[in-house]
Amino acid sequence: MVKIDLNCDMGESFGAYKMGNDAEVLKFITSANVACGYHAGDPSVMRQTVKLALEHGTAIGAHPGFPDLGGFGRRQMTVSADEAYEMTLYQIGALAGFVKVQGGTLQHVKPHGALYNAAAKDAKLAGAIAKAVYDFDPELILFGLSGGELIRAGKQIGLTTASEVFADRTYQPDGTLTPRTQSNALIENDDEAVNQVVRMVKEGKVRDVDGNDVSIEADTVCIHGDGAHALAFAEKINQKLKEENISLQSLK
Amino acid sequence: MVKIDLNCDMGESFGAYKMGNDAEVLKFITSANVACGYHAGDPSVMRQTVKLALEHGTAIGAHPGFPDLGGFGRRQMTVSADEAYEMTLYQIGALAGFVKVQGGTLQHVKPHGALYNAAAKDAKLAGAIAKAVYDFDPELILFGLSGGELIRAGKQIGLTTASEVFADRTYQPDGTLTPRTQSNALIENDDEAVNQVVRMVKEGKVRDVDGNDVSIEADTVCIHGDGAHALAFAEKINQKLKEENISLQSLK
Amino acid sequence: MVKIDLNCDMGESFGAYKMGNDAEVLKFITSANVACGYHAGDPSVMRQTVKLALEHGTAIGAHPGFPDLGGFGRRQMTVSADEAYEMTLYQIGALAGFVKVQGGTLQHVKPHGALYNAAAKDAKLAGAIAKAVYDFDPELILFGLSGGELIRAGKQIGLTTASEVFADRTYQPDGTLTPRTQSNALIENDDEAVNQVVRMVKEGKVRDVDGNDVSIEADTVCIHGDGAHALAFAEKINQKLKEENISLQSLK
Amino acid sequence: MVKIDLNCDMGESFGAYKMGNDAEVLKFITSANVACGYHAGDPSVMRQTVKLALEHGTAIGAHPGFPDLGGFGRRQMTVSADEAYEMTLYQIGALAGFVKVQGGTLQHVKPHGALYNAAAKDAKLAGAIAKAVYDFDPELILFGLSGGELIRAGKQIGLTTASEVFADRTYQPDGTLTPRTQSNALIENDDEAVNQVVRMVKEGKVRDVDGNDVSIEADTVCIHGDGAHALAFAEKINQKLKEENISLQSLK
Repeated sequence: MVKIDLNCDMGESFGAYKMGNDAEVLKFITSANVACGYHAGDPSVMRQTVKLALEHGTAIGAHPGFPDLGGFGRRQMTVSADEAYEMTLYQIGALAGFVKVQGGTLQHVKPHGALYNAAAKDAKLAGAIAKAVYDFDPELILFGLSGGELIRAGKQIGLTTASEVFADRTYQPDGTLTPRTQSNALIENDDEAVNQVVRMVKEGKVRDVDGNDVSIEADTVCIHGDGAHALAFAEKINQKLKEENISLQSLK
Repeated sequence: MVKIDLNCDMGESFGAYKMGNDAEVLKFITSANVACGYHAGDPSVMRQTVKLALEHGTAIGAHPGFPDLGGFGRRQMTVSADEAYEMTLYQIGALAGFVKVQGGTLQHVKPHGALYNAAAKDAKLAGAIAKAVYDFDPELILFGLSGGELIRAGKQIGLTTASEVFADRTYQPDGTLTPRTQSNALIENDDEAVNQVVRMVKEGKVRDVDGNDVSIEADTVCIHGDGAHALAFAEKINQKLKEENISLQSLK
Repeated sequence: MVKIDLNCDMGESFGAYKMGNDAEVLKFITSANVACGYHAGDPSVMRQTVKLALEHGTAIGAHPGFPDLGGFGRRQMTVSADEAYEMTLYQIGALAGFVKVQGGTLQHVKPHGALYNAAAKDAKLAGAIAKAVYDFDPELILFGLSGGELIRAGKQIGLTTASEVFADRTYQPDGTLTPRTQSNALIENDDEAVNQVVRMVKEGKVRDVDGNDVSIEADTVCIHGDGAHALAFAEKINQKLKEENISLQSLK
Repeated sequence: MVKIDLNCDMGESFGAYKMGNDAEVLKFITSANVACGYHAGDPSVMRQTVKLALEHGTAIGAHPGFPDLGGFGRRQMTVSADEAYEMTLYQIGALAGFVKVQGGTLQHVKPHGALYNAAAKDAKLAGAIAKAVYDFDPELILFGLSGGELIRAGKQIGLTTASEVFADRTYQPDGTLTPRTQSNALIENDDEAVNQVVRMVKEGKVRDVDGNDVSIEADTVCIHGDGAHALAFAEKINQKLKEENISLQSLK
């Protein structure tokens, strides 16, 4: 039976600021990427999010980002490979403590936002992040953009990797995502988005913006947890994948 | 043979800001309390400090503080017991990652500054911190003010504790430190400071500000790593203790 | 005609985090306390909030808080009088820039959360804050708890002050607020809350928790802008005060 | 008589962290760029630095940077033009308060580090920064890299600008600085550095890395205040310029 992992960013509240609808979205996903306090999240939120994920049997991953709470980790920062290694390790360690004391296991690491994007393109940065993950625990699974540098770096160092695809983004002829600056970057229609995922999972192919098929590896699908529509879409894609006899399961 | 541990705060640099003289002071101490990024330190500094400590064979401890870089963790903050638990756990986890990837072992946890002071007096806060340490790893040693609430809380939960004394501070009849707001709080004379430590270690007694002897437990002595004079004093106390046939050794 | 100012905290969003319903609440108040980036707010939010307030003709005040975004400025911090002076001045200046470039005038300063509470009780801190406000601009109006140290300090230095009362809090026999730790601290019933305000404004009296009348000065009433119920209450109190022939107007 | 302004970054200490030797360097410069709390500095340091500058009669400028204390504002961040406008305005306002209460006048604004570099190349960012300066006070002088976009943007909006040159950096044939990544980027020899400045000031020319003369506008020279050597160089260039009958004076 074909299978896929559904992942979503979680634990993005901070102090008095609430974000997302974690308790609800958790019902429809199989892997939770938990913010670690750099771009979002704080120790209280991390503890609570890990608790929720464990209660739902959802696999837990660290979601390290740039130290940029004001920009939610979405602003690119030029950091050295050493800095990337160190900030990744710091954040994994911090989250791992909360998982450990609650009796869970850390499944994966997925960089956030601008760090994720940079790691998909910059081999040096990707190598540093992969090394931080490997050094901390070689059993961790590294999530990265399907076809990107981070997946390559993870495989090279000996990590299990999970190639990530997106439901609501269009693809270029070379298998990369259409930049958000372009008008056709997003798939607004839910059915289209779900169908794109079904095809990526079942056939390993995606229709690019020019209408041609491109090969793509899909181990995990990213869905978004904030926004008014997020919960409804989470439920919908969860249901449709099951109807297509695709097994929803985390990667460990 | 009588023995004692000499500990010092380390890894307090931050980004472009340098503090202390870790590489030199490390030669004379047996336990290093490494800042974890909340009141001082950053991931790069943490990695480097752990490396230095391992090279010197100095035992490593986490040194969690309040999230107050601007106040260096010296400003009291009213946090709930839950918040204290969570911020302690976060910081221990973050440091533990750096120790783990470099092949070391975390020996102890010692709260910093205002968090240390609050934990010495506030049983609820002390209990929360002790629980965070215990939950993370019951083999960790908890450092706290000799005779204070944190030592009591550590013992109660089942942790090994290390009662900390100060070389350069005077003591009250009840065994507590003379508050810094009082003129006679500090011992300025090095020989006096060293002699106070020798007596606390060998006899378990300290002369209080009224001139009477008070019983005191001394497992570890705190010395300060910054200030022009710090390195010279570290060397002096290290030498004098050895001359007194007191064995300098970490606690594990 | 009896008059009163209705003030509310505004501009508490931060980066990707949204808080409150400023655009709606602004319709019912006369003074907006704008967060300045320390406990909440950021430069983008400040700019936008000032713009909104000017569009509504609402008077603008700086709302300085402790540097504690994670605690939303609600955690007490022990700062020196100098630090209080400096952090107040910094935040007023930062906000004043946004007001100036948009052609507005800063009306008042009201400390936030834990800084507000400390300034109501601690004469030294109150003096430092009042001096920062006065030094920046002696025409600014200083908001503080009715009967508290900040009002006293403001008057002493020569500032116009605005004694603040609360609609939804009960009062002690000495005119202070019942601490939130006590079960009878809050007035849950809206009509009761509004009636309390009407009486404070018209008669200068409030019924304390023992059922006796206490004298109280009321220049401005604080209402809360977040929470599901906030907007409805803002509208209600605005309407009721008008029905009672109380003129709603800012203080300048 | 030919004249030039000597500027230096100041007020870069933060909390317990000391940086630079402001009190000494101030003796040899004519304009101080004061950090505003985003990449360095804090309200206490700002107050103290303004005080020192006023005592020395040194002109004061705001030195806004990226919100990146951990990277000292030297890491590039991708911010929108609006964000650049807002963070510049916030920081100018914050510093202006300290200048105002001490009876001084703000002379100029010079972006720091990565923000400075980006503003030299990116016309949109440069325009946003220039607009923030102009909106706050059209009398302020805008400092930017000689020949760069920020100078262009400042002139276009109607600001007085000061073209900045560097004593210790080599120049490319197009008048731009040799990137620090190249081995010949720095002039290590003090006499060479001073002579380069003298020629830029007197003749409006600089010898580029290929040995040809390039025209360059020089209104102000940047010298560095930290590093062991900084103070000695400050004194030397101050002295040599005077010997060359070049008048050292601020720009207002």
